[in-house]
Amino acid sequence: MAETQSVLRQTDDESRRLARKLLRGASFVSLAVCDQQSGFPAVSRALTATDYDGVPVILISSLAAHTKSLLADQRCSLLAGEPGKGDPLAHARITVFAQAHAVDRDSEAHGSIRRRFLNRHPKSALYIDFPDFAFFRLMPMYASLNGGFGRAFALESQDLLTPAGSSASDWLRLEEEIMSTNQDATQLARTLGYAITKKCHLTGVDSSGIDFATGSVSFRYEFKSQQPDPQSVIDEISRILDIV
Amino acid sequence: MAETQSVLRQTDDESRRLARKLLRGASFVSLAVCDQQSGFPAVSRALTATDYDGVPVILISSLAAHTKSLLADQRCSLLAGEPGKGDPLAHARITVFAQAHAVDRDSEAHGSIRRRFLNRHPKSALYIDFPDFAFFRLMPMYASLNGGFGRAFALESQDLLTPAGSSASDWLRLEEEIMSTNQDATQLARTLGYAITKKCHLTGVDSSGIDFATGSVSFRYEFKSQQPDPQSVIDEISRILDIV
Repeated sequence: MAETQSVLRQTDDESRRLARKLLRGASFVSLAVCDQQSGFPAVSRALTATDYDGVPVILISSLAAHTKSLLADQRCSLLAGEPGKGDPLAHARITVFAQAHAVDRDSEAHGSIRRRFLNRHPKSALYIDFPDFAFFRLMPMYASLNGGFGRAFALESQDLLTPAGSSASDWLRLEEEIMSTNQDATQLARTLGYAITKKCHLTGVDSSGIDFATGSVSFRYEFKSQQPDPQSVIDEISRILDIV
Repeated sequence: MAETQSVLRQTDDESRRLARKLLRGASFVSLAVCDQQSGFPAVSRALTATDYDGVPVILISSLAAHTKSLLADQRCSLLAGEPGKGDPLAHARITVFAQAHAVDRDSEAHGSIRRRFLNRHPKSALYIDFPDFAFFRLMPMYASLNGGFGRAFALESQDLLTPAGSSASDWLRLEEEIMSTNQDATQLARTLGYAITKKCHLTGVDSSGIDFATGSVSFRYEFKSQQPDPQSVIDEISRILDIV
């Protein structure tokens, strides 16, 4: 946790939404691991996406030191939230403490993780199936959100993750359905208030929000409240588009 | 080190210059420490500048967890080099493994570190002298440079640091002299090929290059070769400006 108890603010729904926007909106993170050779904390950059439940996912090569280190010690943390213009410390960011779990290539989970990762990082198709590459789910334990100077919050795992409500497979089916119906993501993003100049596409849909990408930039919209089931999400998106 | 020996390229002057540009050009870094409470590797964002010899310097509050952690275990690493547009992994970045040393407020070194930090981060004047804030020099031990896909280099401490040649005080006097003569930094940067649209200013001068800032963006020019003494640097800058 980046701040002591005394300077922490009360965690509320707004800070939870900000945390999920940072974590699920990131296309890359700074990843800290215990370096297996030296014992030093080692920080590197990794592409990221999230699993449908909000767990961050990275795709890393067994040739890289951070992969060997994670296999030896699963404890890690990641920093998400990039500074834009102006003072870098005025921009929101989140440190998530997590335990890394390699995703078995033959597991059912692998298929949807691979699909969601490709949605966000189409160019990873070049190496995503290389034998030395593997996905790791970084299961959040707790997090430290810094919303800018003096706005620090301590979050728990459940503040970051998205309850699936009905079963995971229903949500994944919903996502594939929405993707395949070719919703006008650019219009949807503009309706939601994002100043999009280029074409954008959807990279994920879940009970608490929608992930977009335009070029290599990704961002996330959070619903005002959790949607209880897939049909509610479809209704909500229709409602948003109908307002135009 | 982020890559195994087998995929490493031979370190040359070009990779050393790139490493120094990334490290000395950064205005902020991702900092990994061993979290004192949990033992987890913890990553957070910190503003950075460099001491005259190239050692990265951070200014952190004793209220923050990373400060308590560094006081308990000085081992750390930092990631410098921000991605621009396009694939984040195509952009150069460097991980520097270092040992953190708190800078005594009453030491001689404190004055020049404080001055150089303020050059780069003028807004830190608001809190730079607060009693809970302190500078740490992060003494590099070794580093892993990633110049983009497949361009990995292992670097040693001396590849990153700048030999002072003559004494430190001579170099610091040179720097203050160049700053005070109000060199036209914007013209200098343009002459060196940077597409500057706003006014920029110098934030540091040393035997191997010049640090600039424009707004909150900082960047570094590396001389083609090390300058042996302060007068050579003055001559080199005059030479560059005379070419116009």
